[in-house]
Amino acid sequence: MNVTVRGRTQHFRTVTFDRARNSVLLIEQRLLPHEFKIIATKNFRETAAAIRDMIVRGAGAIGATAAYGLAQGALAFRGNNSKNFSAHIKNVYQVLKNARPTAGDPVNAMNDVLDAMRAGKTVEEKQSLALAAAEEFANEDVEHCKEIGRHGAKLIRNGMKILTHCNAGWLAFVDIGTATAPMYAAQKLGKKFHVFCDETRPRSQGATLTAWELAQQNISHQIIADNAAGHLMQRGEIDLVIVGSDRTLGRTGEVTNKIGTYTKAVLAARHKIPFYVAIPLSTIDWNLKSGLKIPIEERSESEVLGAWGIGSRGKRESVRVANPTSGARNPGFDVTPPELITGIITPAGIFKPKGLWKRRRELGFGG
Amino acid sequence: MNVTVRGRTQHFRTVTFDRARNSVLLIEQRLLPHEFKIIATKNFRETAAAIRDMIVRGAGAIGATAAYGLAQGALAFRGNNSKNFSAHIKNVYQVLKNARPTAGDPVNAMNDVLDAMRAGKTVEEKQSLALAAAEEFANEDVEHCKEIGRHGAKLIRNGMKILTHCNAGWLAFVDIGTATAPMYAAQKLGKKFHVFCDETRPRSQGATLTAWELAQQNISHQIIADNAAGHLMQRGEIDLVIVGSDRTLGRTGEVTNKIGTYTKAVLAARHKIPFYVAIPLSTIDWNLKSGLKIPIEERSESEVLGAWGIGSRGKRESVRVANPTSGARNPGFDVTPPELITGIITPAGIFKPKGLWKRRRELGFGG
Repeated sequence: MNVTVRGRTQHFRTVTFDRARNSVLLIEQRLLPHEFKIIATKNFRETAAAIRDMIVRGAGAIGATAAYGLAQGALAFRGNNSKNFSAHIKNVYQVLKNARPTAGDPVNAMNDVLDAMRAGKTVEEKQSLALAAAEEFANEDVEHCKEIGRHGAKLIRNGMKILTHCNAGWLAFVDIGTATAPMYAAQKLGKKFHVFCDETRPRSQGATLTAWELAQQNISHQIIADNAAGHLMQRGEIDLVIVGSDRTLGRTGEVTNKIGTYTKAVLAARHKIPFYVAIPLSTIDWNLKSGLKIPIEERSESEVLGAWGIGSRGKRESVRVANPTSGARNPGFDVTPPELITGIITPAGIFKPKGLWKRRRELGFGG
Repeated sequence: MNVTVRGRTQHFRTVTFDRARNSVLLIEQRLLPHEFKIIATKNFRETAAAIRDMIVRGAGAIGATAAYGLAQGALAFRGNNSKNFSAHIKNVYQVLKNARPTAGDPVNAMNDVLDAMRAGKTVEEKQSLALAAAEEFANEDVEHCKEIGRHGAKLIRNGMKILTHCNAGWLAFVDIGTATAPMYAAQKLGKKFHVFCDETRPRSQGATLTAWELAQQNISHQIIADNAAGHLMQRGEIDLVIVGSDRTLGRTGEVTNKIGTYTKAVLAARHKIPFYVAIPLSTIDWNLKSGLKIPIEERSESEVLGAWGIGSRGKRESVRVANPTSGARNPGFDVTPPELITGIITPAGIFKPKGLWKRRRELGFGG
């Protein structure tokens, strides 16, 4: 999407590849919204470190980064010994996989690259195929988000007020994003609307990343405390909710997403406000039979006990907000049941959550 | 309640009066939870400033502070000219009232003091009666909170996990508090339980004040992001919710309280978790006919856009968390309808919210 740096507006993807330097270019997301900076990784180890250290985050974005990282590793190989090359690739794959061991996207993306490489006979051919496959993965991610936007934009009418939670924007993908895709597409169609961004404690991705994205695209928006949406719904100030999902269960229609999503779904249902979840097909889990069986990651207490931002000296500063002798619980995700979800917006169209399983063939299950 | 300072445990009230120095003693709440300090106001103007500047906050606490402030002003008067004294008292009253012009408690408390003063014939008698009335107001506040505790403690069973929102603790009253009163009473009865404190963005009173209170009383507790309670309820980890209220509508049973309270009530109803509101009778509004007519105060954007705490240099620091080119909405309160409330815990017993009106005579309406 567009970013304006020192008065100049330019199009950026979250992740791109610089062939000449054999380098993965990434938006340094940890500096946002306070600083916009592109970093270039020198080798696959630096790319893995960028995934591990959250320079890049979000399902599609880390998938594309891992795919490019694997290509980067392949291209760095000197010589034409296929056996040595094979051993090298295995190592690159492991290093990138270990950067975020619980994430499915890097593994899926790298498997695409490995599959493509099999068609090559020489090391050189395999190297070219690896990069082409990584590029294809990234481009497909963008196309899928575009399709989500095309379908989702139909839900947005002029004058609507839309609530979103956390960041399922273009920063979480290669471009465009999922929950934001309908907004960007509706904007292109000339529709006027207003977005409320839940700040999304404890990591504040809504106040930082989503708000930054919307500001860059000149979309009317305001940040609200996570406590405020219920009141706004009660007073008729929210017409539509669109969120993303880390994992959607194809068999049950349950949606796993950032902590607090479930609460917004419960509130929306009470107020009969449509609640949509925008997802790429790759995040559908066709195996799991119950969302309540998903173990919820308990994250560091320090996220809840403090906050960070720009301090009085104009520099990044962490502050301890909470009582220093108290601890915290910090579940990272929650599960929203299908009866609270109006529809799942996918690149293939909008589906009822319980309708995913029936349509599984066309959604790529076992395909 | 008890506070341990440098290893020494002592009993404190939020507000007390030092007759010898003619001074109101207040816990400097803006420094909590990071520093515990008692400040002594030199005159009624300083007392008014303490109310205005939020050194003291909370319904009962500012009521008692204003009552003591009026007595302090009365006692500072030199001479025995009744007319001059009368004019002086009017001025003191206005200065204290203007410190927080929208709050009802200071006015109610000061009217009690004025009423009592009428029985005095001389300036000296009126001065004594003023202080006695202020002391009585403060003591009654404590007694009412004790009664709330006595009734509410019956709801707490061994092993329960209790959710509370914001701070309706002893810091908001003269002692004991309202939402916390059942917890402190249950602890005295030897019951074991665990409290989840919503951090209560944007001002984080749960993470700072309530957590500090519970830590001082050695009550097992954890702070959670406001986003987390829905998930905890879904997984069966919350058995009871107790919150306070700024204003409860006697005619309808609607409860106005800190933003986010309504959300917790909606979640509790979905999970069939008892949701109680603990209030002193003075916060019942017997006139208003609809909660939806209550104008909701829109507070400063900066509260949502940032946070404050102890920074890396060990000092108080404010940080700007949010995207610097984004604004915020910041409604301060919300309204919870009676069908979501299991009961209202008052000093006179526990009532169904819609039962308040029928029982209005015994609850002091028109009394």
